[in-house]
Amino acid sequence: MATLCRPSVSVPEHVITMEETLELARERHAGHPQLPLALRLIENTGVRTRHIVQPIEETLRHPGFEDRNKRYEAEAKARVPAVVQRALDDAELLTTEVDLIVYVSCTGFMMPSLTAWLINEMGFEPTTRQLPIAQLGCAGGGAAVNRAHDFCTAYPGANVLIVACEFCSLCYQPTDIGVGSLLSNGLFGDGIAAAVVRGRGGEGIRLERNGSYLVPKTEDWITYDVKATGFHFLLDKRVPGTMEPLAPVLRDLTGDHGWDASDLDFYIVHAGGPRILDDLSTFLRVEPHAFRFSRATLTEYGNIASAVVLDALRRLFDEGGAEQGARGLLAGFGPGITAEMALGRWHGADETM
Amino acid sequence: MATLCRPSVSVPEHVITMEETLELARERHAGHPQLPLALRLIENTGVRTRHIVQPIEETLRHPGFEDRNKRYEAEAKARVPAVVQRALDDAELLTTEVDLIVYVSCTGFMMPSLTAWLINEMGFEPTTRQLPIAQLGCAGGGAAVNRAHDFCTAYPGANVLIVACEFCSLCYQPTDIGVGSLLSNGLFGDGIAAAVVRGRGGEGIRLERNGSYLVPKTEDWITYDVKATGFHFLLDKRVPGTMEPLAPVLRDLTGDHGWDASDLDFYIVHAGGPRILDDLSTFLRVEPHAFRFSRATLTEYGNIASAVVLDALRRLFDEGGAEQGARGLLAGFGPGITAEMALGRWHGADETM
Repeated sequence: MATLCRPSVSVPEHVITMEETLELARERHAGHPQLPLALRLIENTGVRTRHIVQPIEETLRHPGFEDRNKRYEAEAKARVPAVVQRALDDAELLTTEVDLIVYVSCTGFMMPSLTAWLINEMGFEPTTRQLPIAQLGCAGGGAAVNRAHDFCTAYPGANVLIVACEFCSLCYQPTDIGVGSLLSNGLFGDGIAAAVVRGRGGEGIRLERNGSYLVPKTEDWITYDVKATGFHFLLDKRVPGTMEPLAPVLRDLTGDHGWDASDLDFYIVHAGGPRILDDLSTFLRVEPHAFRFSRATLTEYGNIASAVVLDALRRLFDEGGAEQGARGLLAGFGPGITAEMALGRWHGADETM
Repeated sequence: MATLCRPSVSVPEHVITMEETLELARERHAGHPQLPLALRLIENTGVRTRHIVQPIEETLRHPGFEDRNKRYEAEAKARVPAVVQRALDDAELLTTEVDLIVYVSCTGFMMPSLTAWLINEMGFEPTTRQLPIAQLGCAGGGAAVNRAHDFCTAYPGANVLIVACEFCSLCYQPTDIGVGSLLSNGLFGDGIAAAVVRGRGGEGIRLERNGSYLVPKTEDWITYDVKATGFHFLLDKRVPGTMEPLAPVLRDLTGDHGWDASDLDFYIVHAGGPRILDDLSTFLRVEPHAFRFSRATLTEYGNIASAVVLDALRRLFDEGGAEQGARGLLAGFGPGITAEMALGRWHGADETM
């Protein structure tokens, strides 16, 4: 049985508060006809603080796609290894025991992927499989968990390292001034998360089932416009409403597993924005408290893309985990609109395997 | 048992010959101190013709990364569905029977990936898993086969669609005039390939084992420099020599399976360039004729990146396939330097499953 162990998470040292974000928006977009709407939308996110890899003055400058991407690479190389090492240590695993590295990141592009550098730098075996995924965006965290689960199902006893590295601040585009962009500028943050899926043993979520779902005909709701200035994130105003079609999908997957989506013991979901959590609460008829891990991530870090679900899970661990055998759901949402969903039971440290 | 079925392949209608390539190099780089070397290297590739998505005049102009990437998207949408449909038909599979789509492409970047569009456009189920991989470059074809194999191992009876879509001509960078770039300008071509891995039934290669290998400390040998003008392909002059460290890896993997890498019935390998095939022949002590499928791809289409291995396999099918139970190797090579290797046996159409 594949067990998703304690994620290790790191956010950068530069902090920007909601107040500072609002003040910046007022300064930079004074006279923008939709500024009041943008400010209201940002306030409604509930994001109190975000952590970014550069001071805000530097973040607001756009030195070109080339410099941005080089910065992405430098920051990733400087920050990822420590996060990975902690995840391995927490899972009591050596680098040499890892069979697959799934690296998810949509905020920079490297060829080869950072996986090659990590294998060389940290002493993973040359035979380690590499699975870099960029194009699933915020759903990447859920996808990584699910592909890791599949891999451990195919090779019982194999171990998978998941790394989510997102520097959303390096995708800030000063010339994008639509309301969706202004909102995004106040919503997304930077963060790195890593977690191990152990094929045998380990404390955490014993993964039992996974599934994907593409909401039909929504492929242009969350997109990257690829330009000379880099990736331009475009967010359609219909996106916050996607839990209405997705809640029944979560319910079906859970039902197929003989469980009730309204009556699970824990929920670890992508906190793309506050409405996702509110709507899930409504549509699944689950008390808002159940989404406290995701909400805390959103409040303290902002939307850190594919790293959200791992950080939310880290908070469940910090709370002491769940009861032995407790049933839970993990779900990432992202472009497509794609949902990557997993079901599993809590497995404590002291129990037999 | 997962069976890699007949690939369907399509190359674009615009053809450029070796002679035209050499003439263009002479015209555009007259006075370049290393032009004679570049011309010799291009001649040595043995690439007779390449197929590209635009007329050569248009290919040589650089309209900017944004236009290039939009062109990538338009060409992919115009060309991929027919190739996919043929692969499905050849494998006697309906879109609704596909559980996972692995999409590999390193010559354009879309978010969401083309997988979302394909699912909507061609009527795949919304529950189809999407696995888009960009950052494994030419090794992507082998990686796709191997991840498909893993998926079918995890879920016996599941079916996977593999799509490799490469428009290398859209990565032509007129300002790159190093010898490696001049060589690349004469080596790479465009092509689309698709193939189904059936969990049950099907004619083709029954996949038995797969493995990956990263040649230590070679991560800067094949890279993309990401700039405002797009992806700039950088090829180190040490790359053609990589079969020396990789041949023993192929030998070990084959040996672990109880087979002898020098005595297999078929070889389907990435034809990155002619020396890869020559060296494999030497180091594995296999007659050059064994690499005829890969060599034909290289000669007629150039290096079509992740699509090479699928096109080479298509040529084995065109030859009538192999004897029932014939043992073979499939291997993709790409940035990292990464090798993605698979072993399997030929399974004919008329045999029981």
